[in-house]
Amino acid sequence: MADVICFGELMMRLTPPGYARFLQASSFELEWGGAEANVAVALAQLGISVDMVTAFPEGDLGQAAINALRSYGVGVGKILRREGRVGIYFHEKGASQRPSRVIYDRKGSSAALADPSEYDWEEILRGARRFHFTGITPAISSSAAQATEDALKTAKQLGVKVSCDLNFRKNLWDAETAGKTMSRLLRYTDVLACGLDDLAAMFGIKTDAPDRDNIPEGKYIRIGAELKERFGISTTVFSMRKSISSSENDYAVRLYDAETGEICDSAEYHITIVDRIGGGDAAAAGVIYGMLKGYSPQKTAEFAAACAAFKHSVEGDFTSASKAEIDALIESGGSGRVSR
Amino acid sequence: MADVICFGELMMRLTPPGYARFLQASSFELEWGGAEANVAVALAQLGISVDMVTAFPEGDLGQAAINALRSYGVGVGKILRREGRVGIYFHEKGASQRPSRVIYDRKGSSAALADPSEYDWEEILRGARRFHFTGITPAISSSAAQATEDALKTAKQLGVKVSCDLNFRKNLWDAETAGKTMSRLLRYTDVLACGLDDLAAMFGIKTDAPDRDNIPEGKYIRIGAELKERFGISTTVFSMRKSISSSENDYAVRLYDAETGEICDSAEYHITIVDRIGGGDAAAAGVIYGMLKGYSPQKTAEFAAACAAFKHSVEGDFTSASKAEIDALIESGGSGRVSR
Amino acid sequence: MADVICFGELMMRLTPPGYARFLQASSFELEWGGAEANVAVALAQLGISVDMVTAFPEGDLGQAAINALRSYGVGVGKILRREGRVGIYFHEKGASQRPSRVIYDRKGSSAALADPSEYDWEEILRGARRFHFTGITPAISSSAAQATEDALKTAKQLGVKVSCDLNFRKNLWDAETAGKTMSRLLRYTDVLACGLDDLAAMFGIKTDAPDRDNIPEGKYIRIGAELKERFGISTTVFSMRKSISSSENDYAVRLYDAETGEICDSAEYHITIVDRIGGGDAAAAGVIYGMLKGYSPQKTAEFAAACAAFKHSVEGDFTSASKAEIDALIESGGSGRVSR
Amino acid sequence: MADVICFGELMMRLTPPGYARFLQASSFELEWGGAEANVAVALAQLGISVDMVTAFPEGDLGQAAINALRSYGVGVGKILRREGRVGIYFHEKGASQRPSRVIYDRKGSSAALADPSEYDWEEILRGARRFHFTGITPAISSSAAQATEDALKTAKQLGVKVSCDLNFRKNLWDAETAGKTMSRLLRYTDVLACGLDDLAAMFGIKTDAPDRDNIPEGKYIRIGAELKERFGISTTVFSMRKSISSSENDYAVRLYDAETGEICDSAEYHITIVDRIGGGDAAAAGVIYGMLKGYSPQKTAEFAAACAAFKHSVEGDFTSASKAEIDALIESGGSGRVSR
Amino acid sequence: MADVICFGELMMRLTPPGYARFLQASSFELEWGGAEANVAVALAQLGISVDMVTAFPEGDLGQAAINALRSYGVGVGKILRREGRVGIYFHEKGASQRPSRVIYDRKGSSAALADPSEYDWEEILRGARRFHFTGITPAISSSAAQATEDALKTAKQLGVKVSCDLNFRKNLWDAETAGKTMSRLLRYTDVLACGLDDLAAMFGIKTDAPDRDNIPEGKYIRIGAELKERFGISTTVFSMRKSISSSENDYAVRLYDAETGEICDSAEYHITIVDRIGGGDAAAAGVIYGMLKGYSPQKTAEFAAACAAFKHSVEGDFTSASKAEIDALIESGGSGRVSR
Amino acid sequence: MADVICFGELMMRLTPPGYARFLQASSFELEWGGAEANVAVALAQLGISVDMVTAFPEGDLGQAAINALRSYGVGVGKILRREGRVGIYFHEKGASQRPSRVIYDRKGSSAALADPSEYDWEEILRGARRFHFTGITPAISSSAAQATEDALKTAKQLGVKVSCDLNFRKNLWDAETAGKTMSRLLRYTDVLACGLDDLAAMFGIKTDAPDRDNIPEGKYIRIGAELKERFGISTTVFSMRKSISSSENDYAVRLYDAETGEICDSAEYHITIVDRIGGGDAAAAGVIYGMLKGYSPQKTAEFAAACAAFKHSVEGDFTSASKAEIDALIESGGSGRVSR
Repeated sequence: MADVICFGELMMRLTPPGYARFLQASSFELEWGGAEANVAVALAQLGISVDMVTAFPEGDLGQAAINALRSYGVGVGKILRREGRVGIYFHEKGASQRPSRVIYDRKGSSAALADPSEYDWEEILRGARRFHFTGITPAISSSAAQATEDALKTAKQLGVKVSCDLNFRKNLWDAETAGKTMSRLLRYTDVLACGLDDLAAMFGIKTDAPDRDNIPEGKYIRIGAELKERFGISTTVFSMRKSISSSENDYAVRLYDAETGEICDSAEYHITIVDRIGGGDAAAAGVIYGMLKGYSPQKTAEFAAACAAFKHSVEGDFTSASKAEIDALIESGGSGRVSR
Repeated sequence: MADVICFGELMMRLTPPGYARFLQASSFELEWGGAEANVAVALAQLGISVDMVTAFPEGDLGQAAINALRSYGVGVGKILRREGRVGIYFHEKGASQRPSRVIYDRKGSSAALADPSEYDWEEILRGARRFHFTGITPAISSSAAQATEDALKTAKQLGVKVSCDLNFRKNLWDAETAGKTMSRLLRYTDVLACGLDDLAAMFGIKTDAPDRDNIPEGKYIRIGAELKERFGISTTVFSMRKSISSSENDYAVRLYDAETGEICDSAEYHITIVDRIGGGDAAAAGVIYGMLKGYSPQKTAEFAAACAAFKHSVEGDFTSASKAEIDALIESGGSGRVSR
Repeated sequence: MADVICFGELMMRLTPPGYARFLQASSFELEWGGAEANVAVALAQLGISVDMVTAFPEGDLGQAAINALRSYGVGVGKILRREGRVGIYFHEKGASQRPSRVIYDRKGSSAALADPSEYDWEEILRGARRFHFTGITPAISSSAAQATEDALKTAKQLGVKVSCDLNFRKNLWDAETAGKTMSRLLRYTDVLACGLDDLAAMFGIKTDAPDRDNIPEGKYIRIGAELKERFGISTTVFSMRKSISSSENDYAVRLYDAETGEICDSAEYHITIVDRIGGGDAAAAGVIYGMLKGYSPQKTAEFAAACAAFKHSVEGDFTSASKAEIDALIESGGSGRVSR
Repeated sequence: MADVICFGELMMRLTPPGYARFLQASSFELEWGGAEANVAVALAQLGISVDMVTAFPEGDLGQAAINALRSYGVGVGKILRREGRVGIYFHEKGASQRPSRVIYDRKGSSAALADPSEYDWEEILRGARRFHFTGITPAISSSAAQATEDALKTAKQLGVKVSCDLNFRKNLWDAETAGKTMSRLLRYTDVLACGLDDLAAMFGIKTDAPDRDNIPEGKYIRIGAELKERFGISTTVFSMRKSISSSENDYAVRLYDAETGEICDSAEYHITIVDRIGGGDAAAAGVIYGMLKGYSPQKTAEFAAACAAFKHSVEGDFTSASKAEIDALIESGGSGRVSR
Repeated sequence: MADVICFGELMMRLTPPGYARFLQASSFELEWGGAEANVAVALAQLGISVDMVTAFPEGDLGQAAINALRSYGVGVGKILRREGRVGIYFHEKGASQRPSRVIYDRKGSSAALADPSEYDWEEILRGARRFHFTGITPAISSSAAQATEDALKTAKQLGVKVSCDLNFRKNLWDAETAGKTMSRLLRYTDVLACGLDDLAAMFGIKTDAPDRDNIPEGKYIRIGAELKERFGISTTVFSMRKSISSSENDYAVRLYDAETGEICDSAEYHITIVDRIGGGDAAAAGVIYGMLKGYSPQKTAEFAAACAAFKHSVEGDFTSASKAEIDALIESGGSGRVSR
Repeated sequence: MADVICFGELMMRLTPPGYARFLQASSFELEWGGAEANVAVALAQLGISVDMVTAFPEGDLGQAAINALRSYGVGVGKILRREGRVGIYFHEKGASQRPSRVIYDRKGSSAALADPSEYDWEEILRGARRFHFTGITPAISSSAAQATEDALKTAKQLGVKVSCDLNFRKNLWDAETAGKTMSRLLRYTDVLACGLDDLAAMFGIKTDAPDRDNIPEGKYIRIGAELKERFGISTTVFSMRKSISSSENDYAVRLYDAETGEICDSAEYHITIVDRIGGGDAAAAGVIYGMLKGYSPQKTAEFAAACAAFKHSVEGDFTSASKAEIDALIESGGSGRVSR
């Protein structure tokens, strides 16, 4: 019986080695990734029991994905094996002035094809404390969107708290459909992680701030309040990322607590990037962790930011930070002395 | 203006390094392969001008495929760029008692989706001397089957000779559909490379020989004659492969010339296998080469067998044997002294 | 509740890449291996529920070992985390006239240091059907020998059948101590896998056959009978390996059934070796599988030999053959055609 | 018929992996590079038709170079195959306080040995719009210097515009010979890319500025004017590189237009370096591109600087930036968000 | 007859490739390292004759260590071969907010087990000018501590100058034992390299400065004076490292000369880190070099800092900077232009 | 003072990884090799003190070669550092029907350019027992030929025994020049290793046997006698290699002792080839070893053949067999059991 249930697609991630570009590749590093699975793995490393819900085809490629998850201690007993393929995403790591690129090749995946009726949400969610999904899950197919809605309804009935990372992916659906679907799903959501661009694109919630890198705190409060009002979101988590280049980012977490109407800001980290994919997912895992452990909003924001900063130093989508490592990072402020 | 036109799908081939199995992979070697492209590359290395006709999506993955082809000197000017994905095949190299495995992930490829009307066969084939396809091309989609038929009709009109490698792939279509479609297409075909199992499955042409590894020569003559009668095939090429294990094969080419009604057997090679994918394609290229150069059937069989044997020592689908290397192999019988 | 419990040490295996020798290494391939864990992994791939019992230190190296096991679906809930180190074995892959070499660096491992009292055998074995150990487990330390004896006594009480692979390792203990200890432990053992050299060294059971590669079948019957008499072994499994070179072996399994007093011989495989470590462990897993499934002795021998032959084609200690692959190998006789 | 003709030597580039030093290497990454070929590849990626003129020996090493070029879409039809060897340069990638190092091993290359009479410049240049060479080409041998002069004369006759990157290489010739030869060649040159150090060493054109990193703009105008006067250079392109360390550089392009007598400065990029070899060549390609497309001097400077900045993020001599990527970089200023 | 004798343990260093974490490793890079051997290698690259004194087991792993040393020109004629194992340290390279980690697996090494009587210090030290050890050597075992003391006494008798790097390793011994032992050993020591934390932990010598990153120079003078008084240290070398993150450090050397009572500060380097292990050892080598060559304290500090800064750009424990490279770095200030 | 002096060129060997062909290479494995250095390394591994005499340029490439030699314990104190380059040979490993290929790129090497006067043979050879060279050394340049003759004359004067491996390389010189030069040099030679083809090409010494693979023993006796008569060769060593394919060879050593006029044949090994370059050099080392140790001709032949067979299982030119390994191979006959 896992405390947290994550629902979404896990893809094969294929990256040319080092900084090689797609056109230079003579091999691909194989990793596994997906916004929800990344959260599951992060939580499992922190010591939380977590189950991944998704679908894979029979055969060794689906099995390899499952082996990757269970290697990290994520529960795989509720994963469907069914027709379809394993979704793939090709990833080219950026550097300096060259952005990272992602080419999705996920059409026709088992997760996209799975019928809502194949998931028995009562049995999946019974006993769980948290359900996590992202805006990618309903985007991969209409049946996946329906399955998500089914899951959310059951979660609500069973008293399972829901978190969502908004994650608008314009290659998967258009802003209008996304906005309509997500508006429906967010009504069941307690905690929302999001960026300003996605809120603007999906829901028309804008800051009207002229300088994108210098938005006054009050704007964030107003947005948090609006999300509370429109969807009932009790906690909104903003990733405060300043992208200096593909090699350097500044990062902090800002958390809006609708109960108090207040903003909590974490420390800001200046990050030399090893792999930025999954940074936001690590932050989401940090928020879920903080909430499971009853952390204050401020402590939750600090914990989430440290999870995210740490993730940027780890290759692949999956992070592997332990609780002790995150605590040490918060304490040290990230000065990076050798531990021996 | 190329002498040879090859038509079919070129896929990304992903192989775990060395003898690693799919479940052990933490990376994939990237190569490109496809029965028809393999023939095109083989011919280009032999000094023949050849154009590949296929379809890829816009973007770097399709571009990488094109770069691979033109690196080997294959003409890419007639390749379509259109919607769809790049087909993939996952390949696990076998050894000893463990067979090689192929997992196709090619549904929805640009080559499968391309509409027959997108190919201008008159303009593609004008000036060519040979057109080559395999039984895989019509299997990937009905529109690809239609495009193949269009190509064949145009070839006939323009007096372009046609060769085909039967290559029945049971994962792509069933034997009945395959038999029906191929029966139609073989009527335009002059040279057919095939194996006994595929002839039996697709056309019900059987040898009724009790011992699979010891079929009398007469049976082959009878089959060649029947193919001549039913489809007008003037030359039938049999791959005489004895699979001792995944690491060792015996291989020879047997060629039936419908004009004389006679069989020509090449020397037999005892092969220590580096990579057996594409062995048959190399043989097909050898046959086409022999015919373009006016070789006797016997010399053609020898040349084709040497091309195939050599290919087994080369990693990837593509062979890279030069004319001089094939001639040297025929002369030496493959004793493998260091050349320095 | 697992059907099979395996008990022994799992080591980090460090191998220079390819055929590089220790003196040439600038890196090591990391794999995990140990005779009992190899059996556990083999059984899990065949679909059997299995738990590994061993001990690792806290920290990432022990965790990496656990992750490797659970990746393959082996139960890790009963593994101790305690003081000590992770045992290591350095492995240099042989070829042709150069033998493979193993350098043990396993002194002071958590598994060797663990006190017998740390294992709660009643709770570990309750509900299991089979317990498996090898002659390496008691060799690593006297406390490990005691723990093995405790386990065997509990197994007997609970009616859990016991299998053992004799595996004499002269670097870990001398023949006399080994013989004395194993004599005690074999009294609880139902199924024994062994080689003639080890029987001679440990128990003085000799064939007196002048030609090592041509020992009459009767000698094996006599040995099996003696093992029945001295230790109560009901099934003796002989690995019939002819080592032609480090690159080529012939291999078969000979099984003596004490009930009928008869010998069953599997087919013999001519093996081109990818990695021969773990071949015998795969055979042991095949025997356990056959017994769990109620196979006849003959079918069990065939299955075990196919498991062992297949393993020789897989890099690392761990095999990954599925039930379907073993069945296909038995049926085909190992001719190694590409499966696509 | 290509729009641009590049003339020079293409070398095999051998680099220890990652940051390994020569003394640590147990393998070399193989890439291909040379100042003029780098320009050719960069232009081909931008969609310009371009032919490389150089010479290679027969055999697979020369063929590999050709395959690399045609992989990137560069025309190879005018490349000589002749006696000699393939030039090599060994490259050790620097980091932080350790500079990158280059060891030339290019003596006796086919390109150095080729007789001027082997190039038929009329036929090579007919129909071209631009000819590009660098100060390295005439430095590799006196016959290469003569061939360059022949090419330039023919270009002048045919009205082909000429660009040159000054690139003084003190390991290939001394400053005096270089100055004398280049003075002759620059009379045929329209566009010159150069650095202040090289101008001082080769032609005695000095800025007399006390602080090397803070040279007043007026000095550049004076130099541009002098180059116009002495050689007739109509556009001078300065690479404004501040080398903070081997890992970090600031980079901008300054362009002097002799027609207006004015300076145009591009944006300055703060670069985290992946591979700085070929940065200047990418800038040269950007300038040629801008001129072919009729860009204003300012837009040309921006485009060239973005090409150069982007190149620093790509491994190898060759860049692979598309037009769209350069445009996006100019627009974004290089903030490096993930594109998905 | 070597000028410098280094005494300590050399370990096998195993690092996951790139930035992979222990839990992600499927291979390890093999390097060799140890504080004293690092100094020996650094000195040999600078052209100093140096002998390493340590102990290894018979067999290929010990031989590989010896081969590594003699590859770099370090004398190996005085190395013991005896029972025990090769010490190992596992190393995970940090980045950004994630610290590097070291897991020692060195118990039971030949160096730890060697009896003091096995070293014949008279014969080892005769003719040498310098003896170097670190605080790690006596920490690995009490017999190693005794051997160190024997060596120091002999050095004193023979007039060999002694240098020591304090290097407190809390995983090997506690502060109290360390303090007691080192107090004894430092009485024979002329030059001491140390950090403030270690002085505080081992000897209770504290700065009482509130801001760790801003300690007044006077404090250092007071510490140097106290070390002179308590132990007779004539030169104290402080590594002035500011750890901004695991990817970036500022580094300088501060040298206290007890004769003049003055402090010399080197230039400060802003370092982008490739591998920071061995940075301090390179500084120690620089100090020894300066003293052997009769450099002034200021020049010695500059040289040592440049050695340390350079080392951070080199993978592995061993540096490979030549005298010319260090001089060039001091002259250029580390701007990192390509040298070609 | 070394017992054996080897004289010749050591080259950088660049091989595409695995079985990749030159046209597929994106990297090269770096090894070092040369017929005489291979002998030196082989002898050093067997425990013989040996010095290599050759010439390298200053700089890191020459240094890397020296480091490789001293890593293996070969004396490097007599190696010249002088103008020129490091010779290179590109190596493509063959398999099955595809032969291995070598492309020499060694013109202008320091070893070829070195003036005979640069070698002080009196000082190099004083105290040595054996001098070894091959037919490659005089082939690389006329000054190298002269230096060889100088060395031989001095060896004769000092009573140093001389061995030579005939090694005719048709890419370096023509048969006539080779024959003339070698005729002169063999007069100083005691032991000659050679193949029949080279004897025929260089000296017109032919067997006139119709079947190359079945030459009667008497022919060898006649050749040995003729070599004795013409050049005074007291021992002739024939490599009896049957090349079945690039993957499999049969190998034995036949030794003709001119004193007794008798032939000694070693056991024949059936070899699965990992790397056949250097096999003959290992045999030569085995012969020299046997002679230094006073082995009988029969025992010498056995030892040499085992050295050669073992070498075929080792990657690179250099072998690393210890005396114990060769003895074990002779005893076991090469059955290749795992040693643990």
